[in-house]
Amino acid sequence: MTLQPTPRSTVKRGRERAVVEREALHAVLDAGLVCHLAVVVDDAPVVLPTAYGRDGDTLYLHGSTGARTLREASAGMPVCVAVTLVDGVVYSRAAFDFSMNYRSAVVHGTAERVTDPERKLHGLRVLTEHAAPGAWDHVRPPSAKELAATNVLALDLTEASVKIRTGPPGDEDEDVAAGVAWAGVLPLRTTWGEPEPCPRLPEGTPVPEHVTTRL
Amino acid sequence: MTLQPTPRSTVKRGRERAVVEREALHAVLDAGLVCHLAVVVDDAPVVLPTAYGRDGDTLYLHGSTGARTLREASAGMPVCVAVTLVDGVVYSRAAFDFSMNYRSAVVHGTAERVTDPERKLHGLRVLTEHAAPGAWDHVRPPSAKELAATNVLALDLTEASVKIRTGPPGDEDEDVAAGVAWAGVLPLRTTWGEPEPCPRLPEGTPVPEHVTTRL
Repeated sequence: MTLQPTPRSTVKRGRERAVVEREALHAVLDAGLVCHLAVVVDDAPVVLPTAYGRDGDTLYLHGSTGARTLREASAGMPVCVAVTLVDGVVYSRAAFDFSMNYRSAVVHGTAERVTDPERKLHGLRVLTEHAAPGAWDHVRPPSAKELAATNVLALDLTEASVKIRTGPPGDEDEDVAAGVAWAGVLPLRTTWGEPEPCPRLPEGTPVPEHVTTRL
Repeated sequence: MTLQPTPRSTVKRGRERAVVEREALHAVLDAGLVCHLAVVVDDAPVVLPTAYGRDGDTLYLHGSTGARTLREASAGMPVCVAVTLVDGVVYSRAAFDFSMNYRSAVVHGTAERVTDPERKLHGLRVLTEHAAPGAWDHVRPPSAKELAATNVLALDLTEASVKIRTGPPGDEDEDVAAGVAWAGVLPLRTTWGEPEPCPRLPEGTPVPEHVTTRL
């Protein structure tokens, strides 16, 4: 299944980096940890990092009911969400050709405020499982009061674009021939460190499997 | 020197995580690799990942003169820029208390298009040196044609906010006492991998010191 680009979700710069498979969109969203949510407040853009989770072609976002960005986003205002993974710095022979290897997903749409309690709980499960797979069934679920204090938004993934850059620098032949500089890719790796148990845990509490399997 | 928050750069949610030292803003911006630039296009927000660099209290951004986001940003429109570093997932005893450890900087302002050729070149140097310290003097500088094809924007860092979360989960005492779940922080580490030389480099070309010193 391919993405159906609209004018604003059509990649205009670097078309050769555009990817149109919906699976690629899912893969980028699943690989990220936080997204950047942009809304318009008083005619000016506001962008904030926030957690998210994906279920099929729905992106769930959440936050305090007191957060203005989220209130604006849930009031039927247009939103834009970006998830970006930087995979490396591309060292080129010419300053102009410096680049990064990355995977980028951008979603445009109107967020829907989830009010149905069961769907709200589902959205929170999706969000928690995205950040911490396996954690939801391990922890205390939200109380009614906590649920009421949380805004959950659902954003349809219909209008989205994906750009991916991989591989070596794209220097001009003249620069390659001139041999002016070293060129290559310095990869950026993201890895989990050793779990740091909460100091308020009873001594000797084992780290559960849903955490250790991430290492 | 402290940040002077305006209404929109005042941290409203999680005030205890707000940091007001200008040095903290600089530190977050210097530690990031890409930013998320948001502009308003046709009354809707658009957010895209892009490279940046900092010189004092000026943030430089750049892109192709053909890129609409950057054209909008350079036309005196308000912009918002976020730089986010995720340091770990905070596993709590209650779903409601799940969080992330992070460093976040958000800048509001109006970007100025840099037209003076010398300052434009300076901005590009700052951008290149941010992504690849030491590279600028090693590579071929931009030609007049390349300079003309590049938009360089300068954004003042006056109106900015910083939020930082560190440390263990902040569970309620009842949840700690109940001992329902493991809790702690799973740190996220970002490291450079081994440099991957461009296949078009002459065999045996040594990796220069400005690259190896990052490892």
